Amino acid sequence: MAFGWIDEQADARRRAGLVRTLRPRPADSPLLDLASNDYLGLARHPEVTEGAAAAARTWGGGATGSRLVTGTTALHRELEEELARFCGFEAALVLSSGYAANLAAVTALAPHGSLLVSDAGNHASLIDGCRLARAATQVVAHADPDAVRKALGTHGGQAVLVSDTVFSVDGDAAPLARHAEVCREHGAGLVLDDAHGLGVLGDGGRGAPHAAGLAGADDVVVTVTLSKSLGSQGGAVLGPARVIDHLVNTARTFIFDTGLAPAAAGAALAALRLLRREPERAARARAVAAELHARLSGAGLRAVRPDAAVVSVCAPSPEQAVRWAADCRAAGLAVGCFRPPSVPDGISRLRLTARADLSGAQIERAVRVIGETRP
Amino acid sequence: MAFGWIDEQADARRRAGLVRTLRPRPADSPLLDLASNDYLGLARHPEVTEGAAAAARTWGGGATGSRLVTGTTALHRELEEELARFCGFEAALVLSSGYAANLAAVTALAPHGSLLVSDAGNHASLIDGCRLARAATQVVAHADPDAVRKALGTHGGQAVLVSDTVFSVDGDAAPLARHAEVCREHGAGLVLDDAHGLGVLGDGGRGAPHAAGLAGADDVVVTVTLSKSLGSQGGAVLGPARVIDHLVNTARTFIFDTGLAPAAAGAALAALRLLRREPERAARARAVAAELHARLSGAGLRAVRPDAAVVSVCAPSPEQAVRWAADCRAAGLAVGCFRPPSVPDGISRLRLTARADLSGAQIERAVRVIGETRP
Repeated sequence: MAFGWIDEQADARRRAGLVRTLRPRPADSPLLDLASNDYLGLARHPEVTEGAAAAARTWGGGATGSRLVTGTTALHRELEEELARFCGFEAALVLSSGYAANLAAVTALAPHGSLLVSDAGNHASLIDGCRLARAATQVVAHADPDAVRKALGTHGGQAVLVSDTVFSVDGDAAPLARHAEVCREHGAGLVLDDAHGLGVLGDGGRGAPHAAGLAGADDVVVTVTLSKSLGSQGGAVLGPARVIDHLVNTARTFIFDTGLAPAAAGAALAALRLLRREPERAARARAVAAELHARLSGAGLRAVRPDAAVVSVCAPSPEQAVRWAADCRAAGLAVGCFRPPSVPDGISRLRLTARADLSGAQIERAVRVIGETRP
Repeated sequence: MAFGWIDEQADARRRAGLVRTLRPRPADSPLLDLASNDYLGLARHPEVTEGAAAAARTWGGGATGSRLVTGTTALHRELEEELARFCGFEAALVLSSGYAANLAAVTALAPHGSLLVSDAGNHASLIDGCRLARAATQVVAHADPDAVRKALGTHGGQAVLVSDTVFSVDGDAAPLARHAEVCREHGAGLVLDDAHGLGVLGDGGRGAPHAAGLAGADDVVVTVTLSKSLGSQGGAVLGPARVIDHLVNTARTFIFDTGLAPAAAGAALAALRLLRREPERAARARAVAAELHARLSGAGLRAVRPDAAVVSVCAPSPEQAVRWAADCRAAGLAVGCFRPPSVPDGISRLRLTARADLSGAQIERAVRVIGETRP
């Protein structure tokens, strides 16, 4: 039977305790949320939801076509201009997701005959971008500029380093300044995914590339998501205007996709303006992360020192990680649970998000629950 | 210089007259729209925009995380259940775009060692799905069941035919019943992209697979978009529950992407309910397409007989197609313009959308402008 083979895979997942299921949440969940990527607590901010609602009313429920046909509204342009200015880049291009933005940037900037150097800890969307690109790919050791240098040394032509700025699983940061130095030695470009940096790192949340002095550089292209700190949906590519023009003309996930829904553009724009007005939100997210890490470590748990707003806590096994997360949930706390095959190193973790709007009492409660339910 | 090579490509595009630029539109465009994919004219329907606004208020500006973590709301579940039921499938899974839905379905259903048979006219997202999949791909002649049979005959293991139901460029339909027959002879599965069929073809707009008697079959998986007839953003995969479970567990563009924004889910759900209540909208879109085709042909233009709501008009050259579309625009009519590399056969076209809400006078005006501006 067609598709019959998937039943065997399903059985294997069941035996290994690796079945994933969707758990629809209610609008008024009683759980304390340390699982989402709503780093600044803006997804339900009234200005953000009104930004979405007003945009839908003014522009419609959808963009109605490709950005190249009818899918570019004046609202898209406004968002692109403000986002580029905020992050310190010449131009920006908004796509329907961060995934699409990464596929666009990586495939369009790595032509046949070029080399993609890809960090071993990169997000799935960057990996898929490398697989789709016509370039060769060399995967290098995680966050290791020497490994990048070695890889670039093997190749004579065009080359691009592709890396997350903050890695999703452990929340650790890439050594951006050293990466840039190595790339410049070799005339290679950088494509950096700042999904977990925007809104959290840099001056007022301008992101990790801005903090590293790389914003606006000729050889740096950054992707961001509108769905984490900005509480909406969508992604964007930031870079020199000539690179953005190149994407408009060649990036398949831009050209052959419907434009981002106006409501998502409106929500992201409202969140961006809020962040500009209240830049302390970024520092607060980092402070919450540091406090979570200190308290968890103080309680004897193995937590990775956070470079941004993600705090990762190691679990002894996938099964125990799942049970731990479930026990937290039963005690009123939502935490993320990362396990194979989502983690590159096979180590299962609880993944905590240090939302800027968590109170001291909420942080204390979260740490208590995690400690009490530890395997 | 890094990325220096893109300037040469930009020059080549300029010389060939193939530069694409974004043209932001105002909220109250005076143009008569025959360019969007808003087939049923629902994108700006008050029920649809209120569906978006209410969802943003209730659920927030974004889904806040992966569907597997915090990104599944009760609203997503509701949309999935109603969409599956409407189209006649056991289950559905909503993703952030039709592009993401196609990447998910094709990659997850074509494991290493299997064969993907892909129609030569398929959409970019299906092609990219084939490129990302671990399977081998054989591209076969457009809409040709004999070519599919031949390709399937070369392969002993699992195989899947991948095809649009209605092709975006010419608006022609795939021979679904014959494709299914050939696939069943060989025990192969079908993955059908009904982006341009949903809302237009089948009983009350239930889509091309429903019209062909394939809805709900064990060996048929369908992808749809929420951004065309449903006036919103997003995509979905429809199929047997076991296939949908498989995608939840393995499809990277599902697992590693933020869930669809609540506003987009709310808009799509409102549009779906509208379509159920007013099923005549689907037939009206087809009637408008037939009338457009008849009148354009009557005026001596070379137009492809439409199988759904897309009417394609051939142009003598890319430059003339661009000038023709620009002249239409100057006369108050927005039409699509497809030219290389977006068209597989190198023939440039005007692409017209037969919106269900076009009046007789608007159709007449459109035909007049297109005739008067012909190269």
